[in-house]
Amino acid sequence: MATGLIKGNAIIGQSGGPTSVINQSLVGCVEVLQTSPHVDKIYGSHHAVRGMVEGNFIDMSEIPRDRLDRIAETPSAALGSSRDKPDEAYCRKIFKSFERHDIRFFFYIGGNDSSDTCRLINEMAKKDSYELRCFHIPKTIDNDLQCNDHTPGYGSAAKFVASAFIGDNLDNRALPGIKIDVVMGRHAGFLTAASALARQNPEDGPHLIYVPEVAFDTEKFIADVDRIYTRQGRVLIAVSEGIHAPDGTPMAVKLASETAGEVERDAHGNVQLSGTGALGDYLSLLLKQKLGTNLRVRADTFGYMQRCFAGVVSPADRLEARNAGRKAAEVALLGDLDGSIAIQRTSDVPYTVEYGLVKLEDVAAKTRTMPSEFLTGGNDVTEAFLRYVRPIVGPLPTVELLRIRNANLMTT
Amino acid sequence: MATGLIKGNAIIGQSGGPTSVINQSLVGCVEVLQTSPHVDKIYGSHHAVRGMVEGNFIDMSEIPRDRLDRIAETPSAALGSSRDKPDEAYCRKIFKSFERHDIRFFFYIGGNDSSDTCRLINEMAKKDSYELRCFHIPKTIDNDLQCNDHTPGYGSAAKFVASAFIGDNLDNRALPGIKIDVVMGRHAGFLTAASALARQNPEDGPHLIYVPEVAFDTEKFIADVDRIYTRQGRVLIAVSEGIHAPDGTPMAVKLASETAGEVERDAHGNVQLSGTGALGDYLSLLLKQKLGTNLRVRADTFGYMQRCFAGVVSPADRLEARNAGRKAAEVALLGDLDGSIAIQRTSDVPYTVEYGLVKLEDVAAKTRTMPSEFLTGGNDVTEAFLRYVRPIVGPLPTVELLRIRNANLMTT
Repeated sequence: MATGLIKGNAIIGQSGGPTSVINQSLVGCVEVLQTSPHVDKIYGSHHAVRGMVEGNFIDMSEIPRDRLDRIAETPSAALGSSRDKPDEAYCRKIFKSFERHDIRFFFYIGGNDSSDTCRLINEMAKKDSYELRCFHIPKTIDNDLQCNDHTPGYGSAAKFVASAFIGDNLDNRALPGIKIDVVMGRHAGFLTAASALARQNPEDGPHLIYVPEVAFDTEKFIADVDRIYTRQGRVLIAVSEGIHAPDGTPMAVKLASETAGEVERDAHGNVQLSGTGALGDYLSLLLKQKLGTNLRVRADTFGYMQRCFAGVVSPADRLEARNAGRKAAEVALLGDLDGSIAIQRTSDVPYTVEYGLVKLEDVAAKTRTMPSEFLTGGNDVTEAFLRYVRPIVGPLPTVELLRIRNANLMTT
Repeated sequence: MATGLIKGNAIIGQSGGPTSVINQSLVGCVEVLQTSPHVDKIYGSHHAVRGMVEGNFIDMSEIPRDRLDRIAETPSAALGSSRDKPDEAYCRKIFKSFERHDIRFFFYIGGNDSSDTCRLINEMAKKDSYELRCFHIPKTIDNDLQCNDHTPGYGSAAKFVASAFIGDNLDNRALPGIKIDVVMGRHAGFLTAASALARQNPEDGPHLIYVPEVAFDTEKFIADVDRIYTRQGRVLIAVSEGIHAPDGTPMAVKLASETAGEVERDAHGNVQLSGTGALGDYLSLLLKQKLGTNLRVRADTFGYMQRCFAGVVSPADRLEARNAGRKAAEVALLGDLDGSIAIQRTSDVPYTVEYGLVKLEDVAAKTRTMPSEFLTGGNDVTEAFLRYVRPIVGPLPTVELLRIRNANLMTT
């Protein structure tokens, strides 16, 4: 080969929270690798870095195209995932395992932690002069990776959120009250912000949107809700699980301390925000205490449904996740040594993207949050955000209302 | 007319919790009434019984077909709904309003409370020799009406639940742990039971299903979870919000008393079960306390999303809801005096139904629960239930797994 491409085995892993389209990226990568004479075995690592250390692989070299297509359409991580965040010693074990199994191509689908794992292993390989192609394929419903216009997984999760809000707005319209919906998003509000896509008519909610990028002011929240409820007799509220007080304390932690509950932390030291309805229940209680105990206040926490719900997939997200996986395999086979695939928008209308290659360290361990031009600064998103997010999510169900302004207000 | 059909105005109301297809029934009724020379004005009552009392109507007499079709496809109750449960005095006001507005045809779409309201008003009309056609059109995601094989609204909500469980099973497979999903259903477990449709492979969850029809035994629950977790390292659990202790106390109330929280009751005296994550959080805490505090236990409460999520509709449910509305108008125009439309299954394969007319009092104020042949008696549903529910829900996304038994278990 002109590029001096090494011959050997390839490994692919899927890390962190699964998404509806992470298997598209897996299959995109595998289907391209299957065509190359430079790749011998194509291994899927069972449960991400754990499988890499243990040599617990699934051989994907010979899986036929029709089965690959069915895997691609299946939500969640087909290889299994892991929440482990490898340190240097852990990465050293992975690297040693790679040497033992003659792994020469390494693809890791995940968020910025995964990119950082790629970076660490890549540096070990370079230091040991072990020829290894190392590529990160982006994935996160939080949409919080640097260098990317948006990330695979986000569009489908955002479609779920928008579809849920279309329904819940109509539900809240039929049975008026105060409704709080808690959406995933620890540091970035992109997913919560997608709830704004549910608005099709002037009276439609969400009427208030709270994201982690804006400090949560309890007094202002109560005043916001009171103002809208007084005006229109109902309020639909979108809240990120990661909202925090002005002093930086996450509201979920504030709740825990105020109710003597326990705070669970994961291996990364993060407080558990999903898989509990506590934040929503706390906000409900707060509103009842401040605005009236006989108010109809309800809270739903969307939870894990947002990331893997079967059958709700954005067409753009499906395609881009596949292409991101394909691109990683393509650049590896063309001789590139390492990097992270990044989706970059080339045009808004018509919507087009290209798949760039950026440095691992530029994506690793850095979180992107919503830029200020997407936020009003208070409790809403801007038209610029809606222009940004619409093509990523794709078409949504449209609604037709019967309006009370058409009613015959007959005296009784 | 041979049947002596009276000429006058018609009114339609939508009551209780909205569904994804309740507007299909509304439109089905309206589109048939629009063709009749015996019906003058077709009124939609704004917010159900409230609009009836206040004379707050939306004139639907001239809405064109294409707009009706768009309304039919829109989730939730387009007319607005109400949780009011009218007593005799309330019904008297409604009846007086009907007289004032020359209402001669009354259609009420709702659950068994709505059928009871129909019955009360019907009796007043008969007593006063006021000629009124009175029809109840079934609607409830709980599927708990007597005389019906199943009810409009159930199929689409069941499709939502099954789709959520398909995704959550794969999520739980990728990141193993104990996951609890709380599903709507105060007295009837039909909706929770539909989670079993998510099983496509032998290892798929839900692995345990708890419904209100079977007393919830806390010790047995802990033992069930422990046994499955020990065997396969993960457990996915479906729980009805209405599960209760052997002494009849709802678990949500038991929770409230044990945590010194407050219990909210609605106008019917029912304890608030939806719109809070408390039951799921309580069960999580219980499992951690009993099985190990370092276990990964998560709970999601599906909440209001189940009934109005935009874009997830069962084809059979959509059609049957429309037909139930049409049937009510048809029998009213053919000279029947009163009754409740009931979906009756005529064949399993191919799946066919017919729309019968049953007595209002047979449906009113009676709750149907899951028959014993649909339940194993412990923590699962039977094959008979699956045969029953499949055609009601329709096709679901299929999944393709990568199995660890295909893995090369290489020594490291």
